[in-house]
Amino acid sequence: MIRPDADCLVNGRPAATIDVADRGLAYGDGVFETIAVVDGEPRLLTEHLQRLERGCRRLGLSLPQPGDWQSDLDQTDLPRYGVLRLTVTRGVGGQGYAPPRSSRCTRITRVLPAPERPVDWWRAGIDVRWCDTRLAIQPALAGIKHLNRLEQVLARAEWNDSAIAEGLMRSTGGQVIEATSSNILVDAGDRLLIPDTRECGVDGIMQQWLINGAQSSGVNVERASLNAEALMGSHGIMLTNSLVGLWSVRRINQTPVPHSPRAHWLQGRIAEHRLALMPEVVTR
Amino acid sequence: MIRPDADCLVNGRPAATIDVADRGLAYGDGVFETIAVVDGEPRLLTEHLQRLERGCRRLGLSLPQPGDWQSDLDQTDLPRYGVLRLTVTRGVGGQGYAPPRSSRCTRITRVLPAPERPVDWWRAGIDVRWCDTRLAIQPALAGIKHLNRLEQVLARAEWNDSAIAEGLMRSTGGQVIEATSSNILVDAGDRLLIPDTRECGVDGIMQQWLINGAQSSGVNVERASLNAEALMGSHGIMLTNSLVGLWSVRRINQTPVPHSPRAHWLQGRIAEHRLALMPEVVTR
Repeated sequence: MIRPDADCLVNGRPAATIDVADRGLAYGDGVFETIAVVDGEPRLLTEHLQRLERGCRRLGLSLPQPGDWQSDLDQTDLPRYGVLRLTVTRGVGGQGYAPPRSSRCTRITRVLPAPERPVDWWRAGIDVRWCDTRLAIQPALAGIKHLNRLEQVLARAEWNDSAIAEGLMRSTGGQVIEATSSNILVDAGDRLLIPDTRECGVDGIMQQWLINGAQSSGVNVERASLNAEALMGSHGIMLTNSLVGLWSVRRINQTPVPHSPRAHWLQGRIAEHRLALMPEVVTR
Repeated sequence: MIRPDADCLVNGRPAATIDVADRGLAYGDGVFETIAVVDGEPRLLTEHLQRLERGCRRLGLSLPQPGDWQSDLDQTDLPRYGVLRLTVTRGVGGQGYAPPRSSRCTRITRVLPAPERPVDWWRAGIDVRWCDTRLAIQPALAGIKHLNRLEQVLARAEWNDSAIAEGLMRSTGGQVIEATSSNILVDAGDRLLIPDTRECGVDGIMQQWLINGAQSSGVNVERASLNAEALMGSHGIMLTNSLVGLWSVRRINQTPVPHSPRAHWLQGRIAEHRLALMPEVVTR
């Protein structure tokens, strides 16, 4: 049906398919990472592999061997600019939901094209909307990037307007947590605030990198429980992920919000380190 | 890697693998059914296909054509006793979480062996335990049988003792909802109670069939918000699903609970209609 493709390795071998019995398909029983490839190099790879490992430990998945990913990358023809998606599932086996006693995980390494976005989204900021779909409160799965992503799919399906770049998601408890595929940084003037992810949400790699840099520069960063009012009354809202780097939010549901004076500085730091697929970095 | 196998059809063709880019694997973006095959016939098939369709509608998945499943079954060599697993995913496509504008769903029809369980579990009842893993409150996904099942996997991974048949799960709000792979029927004496599934949990096909029959026989059945104390103080607790039919709970975390006087009657109804893989039905 599908020819093996060098852009995808399954357990180290070129393959474009996986076993239909894989628990990744049956139950979303696994974790993944989405990594920017810039100048032919996966960026923040160590940090991404650390989060993948945290996810594997949380779910009780057997870890890929340390050399496995490097061996995959050695076999992979990485583009100058693109996306690397790494996935680990619990593999095949077990009886129903019961995990197999000893399982070999399935390791998937895929190369995808860089998504195309309007340059203006980095320069002028983005329009976003509030999503109706809420994030359920589930501490057992909070923070890690697992394969159970129906909430994000439902939230992203709420709009078709290509002028809306992202959707902001609240928990069922009403706290602002993240956007469908990016994390939130709130400029509170004297400090940066990031939503608490102990109940739900994904701990972002780029968000953490930006936090570390901000703290090194003497900026205070705090985790906070944020509601919609706190966002609307802030000095600026930024969305960040490993692919786009950072966008400043211009409007939420057509209501203008302040542009953070820190957005340009943070974008500059990402561009300087060539970490994300930003217009300043990608020359097509 | 894997040879095509007549025990599995993907979009109507013999195949043992699916595209690594399928959204079922990437995000758990799909729904499934697990159906008992007795005397070579899938049981309660109409009801299972109706729930599958409800799930597709809820997630905005394109529905398989009505004749597709029958065509799959016509091509499939169903065993005398076994399990039929039907899966629908959103297929390949879209950008990130955004569903593709027009997608062809992936339809998977698999035949699996009947699980082996001690005969005593039907005769004497089962030992169960309370799971620590809670079900998150998510009305957008409640009731349907979607592919995001990490909560069930984590709950089922809490014990290895093969003498424990099932684990009871509560919501993060503390309400008793279901077991990891079965639904709960509580005998409250003058009536049967079933947990409310508006916030979380799966609406069970066998549970519904039993309810319909009980109501036809004049038994009152009510949906209720149940906590652990209500269960322990009841006239009996039964677990039900499409494969096992019905088990009576004998002990919860080693504490004996009453045996429902209705359990034998309900098992008898399932056996009489040859609906599940019970000792009374399966002659090996």
